[in-house]
Amino acid sequence: MKTEEFTKILSDRKLAQLGDAFVNFVYSLALTRSIGEPIGTKVSDRVLADAARMAGIRKLLPKRTTRGDVSNAVEALVVYVWLHNYMTMDEILAILEAQIDSPSDAFTTLSEKIIKKLIDK
Amino acid sequence: MKTEEFTKILSDRKLAQLGDAFVNFVYSLALTRSIGEPIGTKVSDRVLADAARMAGIRKLLPKRTTRGDVSNAVEALVVYVWLHNYMTMDEILAILEAQIDSPSDAFTTLSEKIIKKLIDK
Repeated sequence: MKTEEFTKILSDRKLAQLGDAFVNFVYSLALTRSIGEPIGTKVSDRVLADAARMAGIRKLLPKRTTRGDVSNAVEALVVYVWLHNYMTMDEILAILEAQIDSPSDAFTTLSEKIIKKLIDK
Repeated sequence: MKTEEFTKILSDRKLAQLGDAFVNFVYSLALTRSIGEPIGTKVSDRVLADAARMAGIRKLLPKRTTRGDVSNAVEALVVYVWLHNYMTMDEILAILEAQIDSPSDAFTTLSEKIIKKLIDK
């Protein structure tokens, strides 16, 4: 995948909307599996923006991008790989569960793996 | 499944929390598939409470139950059948997509099918 195509995904607001629902659901499910009882949660913009910075996504976005839009970029990316079958839900869950105590680290690792997958294509 | 066990699911608030994330995600995905481009949405308490009334779930709950808790009952029920493999995500999506223009009707049909599945057990 070309950088241009990749950055287009990052700024796709419609994809980010779906990604928001997806990210909240998969993280809630990872938490549920981890603690062994149902729980629902929301992943904050701060967590996702931190992951974007640590995974090197932030620097691909314009400097003035708001934290909300940096967070949107991660949401768009995560749901993109699932929708396009680069990763299964079980793979995503396994990555999140492995660092369930630190959501920022969990989403950083997930973002790094996604970038590797997309750049290999 | 006994009525007692069924009503326990309906009033499980933790399950409803996870159900909230699940319902928003599957409905967003059903909409996405239906219109052919990504979209994220939230399913309102009103929609879910209407479905609870029409599917006969409302009458299993105490009279003074708030609309929020009636909606929670549907959210708990929907994620319960998925978590416990009574229905796959694809089956749930197909039911929602069939009446995508009327979320209340879509969740009524889904609730009716869930009740049938659980009562058959």
